[in-house]
Amino acid sequence: MATNVNAYAAQSSDADLKPFDIKRRNLTADDVQIEIEYCGVCHSDIHQVRNDWKNSQYPVVPGHEIVGRVTGVGDDVSNFSEGDLVGVGCMVDSCQTCPACENDLEQYCENGAVMTYNGPDEHLGGHTYGGYSEKIVVDKEFVLSIPENIDTKATAPLLCAGITTWSPLKHWDVGEGDKVGVIGLGGLGHMGVKFADALGAEVVMITRSPEKADDAKRLGADKVLISTDEQQMQEHAGSFDFLLNTIPVGHDIDPYIQLLGLDATMVLVGAIEPLDEFHGGGLIMGRKRVAGSVIGGIKETQEMLDFCGEHDITCDVEMIDIREINEAYERVVNSDVKYRFVIDMDSLKS
Amino acid sequence: MATNVNAYAAQSSDADLKPFDIKRRNLTADDVQIEIEYCGVCHSDIHQVRNDWKNSQYPVVPGHEIVGRVTGVGDDVSNFSEGDLVGVGCMVDSCQTCPACENDLEQYCENGAVMTYNGPDEHLGGHTYGGYSEKIVVDKEFVLSIPENIDTKATAPLLCAGITTWSPLKHWDVGEGDKVGVIGLGGLGHMGVKFADALGAEVVMITRSPEKADDAKRLGADKVLISTDEQQMQEHAGSFDFLLNTIPVGHDIDPYIQLLGLDATMVLVGAIEPLDEFHGGGLIMGRKRVAGSVIGGIKETQEMLDFCGEHDITCDVEMIDIREINEAYERVVNSDVKYRFVIDMDSLKS
Repeated sequence: MATNVNAYAAQSSDADLKPFDIKRRNLTADDVQIEIEYCGVCHSDIHQVRNDWKNSQYPVVPGHEIVGRVTGVGDDVSNFSEGDLVGVGCMVDSCQTCPACENDLEQYCENGAVMTYNGPDEHLGGHTYGGYSEKIVVDKEFVLSIPENIDTKATAPLLCAGITTWSPLKHWDVGEGDKVGVIGLGGLGHMGVKFADALGAEVVMITRSPEKADDAKRLGADKVLISTDEQQMQEHAGSFDFLLNTIPVGHDIDPYIQLLGLDATMVLVGAIEPLDEFHGGGLIMGRKRVAGSVIGGIKETQEMLDFCGEHDITCDVEMIDIREINEAYERVVNSDVKYRFVIDMDSLKS
Repeated sequence: MATNVNAYAAQSSDADLKPFDIKRRNLTADDVQIEIEYCGVCHSDIHQVRNDWKNSQYPVVPGHEIVGRVTGVGDDVSNFSEGDLVGVGCMVDSCQTCPACENDLEQYCENGAVMTYNGPDEHLGGHTYGGYSEKIVVDKEFVLSIPENIDTKATAPLLCAGITTWSPLKHWDVGEGDKVGVIGLGGLGHMGVKFADALGAEVVMITRSPEKADDAKRLGADKVLISTDEQQMQEHAGSFDFLLNTIPVGHDIDPYIQLLGLDATMVLVGAIEPLDEFHGGGLIMGRKRVAGSVIGGIKETQEMLDFCGEHDITCDVEMIDIREINEAYERVVNSDVKYRFVIDMDSLKS
């Protein structure tokens, strides 16, 4: 029924991450078993380890940017075989029958998608465990193919940071002829710049930090707009077709609304938090829109991965050993990473 | 060059409205001269008389819901002739050349549409004067045809309250099969209910005031949702395709965002004011949108008026004499009008 697996888990809200044995279900007919090679470190891992969202269930085994090799498949699995390079993102299941699921929008499943960790585990009971682990067993519908031609370790964050920025760019049809602003240069923002650039848009990196300008341009930004410089903000007022707002904390959105042109949209992807008061007139004068977006559906995630293979796009990563995870968390919190930590899961064995 | 005209004006921010002589330009080749029969009382008249928006220029002659008869046309005017029943709304001019104007969106003119009152007057200098007046002279491009078959006095508020609610319903393609919520039952809201109903949507009136339920149903609402009743709000959570938010003051939008379904939009049309802080997660989880919209373009306004003629739609109005204007303002501020005051401009002569 279940197999013991080595993992790194937090056992209470103030606990460090520590070695921990968890159970993974044995293969069912629809399952794919994966030996995890790399797992990205997402800011939401930290939120959940620290119970910031008040819904963590311990032990928390974080990790939803998972890449590895297939080590076994169930009898009804035909789309994957042993040795395939595959990925798992933020979801491992959904109802598959609601209108959202039927439209390939499992992330908005009306019955609630099952998150890769801290979700309800229908197979073993309790809750799901994520990718800071040597193995994972996942329903075949939630397993992605990873292109073999790009740097594997740098693909892991595509499963969350990548799809989170790709999905709104595609949904709002961003491409050639559009002036796109990416607000905030972190794990999400650096992928937003790469994707918007690859999709043919004019890309403006919008940041408070002038020292990030060179890196933004290296990543694909045509211009850098310093958001604390009122004159620069005024020069760009009303000129953007689309803004991808990756700021991960509450903030004042009014200055960014002023940047939008007629009928233009700003999409929030980072701030699952209270935002400051804003002025209704900013939206009313110019028929502007503020929207939200969370990760992406499985089909769309595969399209993004295929696009990355074709266009040689990966994330900028810093590799760490699993024993460096707490230091890495501190650095993520301090925005001191370019731009995503990835854990080499071999380090779990040593 | 200019003709003296009798009007009602406020001469300072704490002044009552009083009889006042203003100048109207003589007809140019492109102008239409109108004898005003009726003028609606919009909440924004009060804001500007009282200088709430800190940009009023005195004397303020309010009024941008104007209906009257053509009494003269310039040499180059072919679309109107003497005796025609016509209307003038919130704008009397725009640049006519920017992308917004070229797309029939004069209300978003990049160079700034000229408002019917308190806008810069390029003809006589100073600023424009509105419809609390016996006559007005307006460029032919900003004059609307009013259907003769519907109650004239009840058409005046269509020029602002009507188009303000019509435009977003049409822009976001509201119609049969949509569940539409209209938030707030006042001058805007009552037109939102009538239009959404006439467009074939299922209409839910959303209000804090249970005593408004009967009237909302008379106006066309299929259901009434009391926004202070948490159980009712929970029952409707995630179920709306579109929300038209007519609340004219700052408020908490989070409870309304919770009502939106996947990819659904709430459009703000009333609150040109700071809104409370809101939770980013409300938009992110469900890819929801909050947008704004202001009045509508001239072409769209004519389409709305034609629709009203075809479907026998007018505003619910209370007629007043111009000398009752200050009492009417107090009642508007106290939401004590069903649903729009209209001034009979004959009273200006007596």
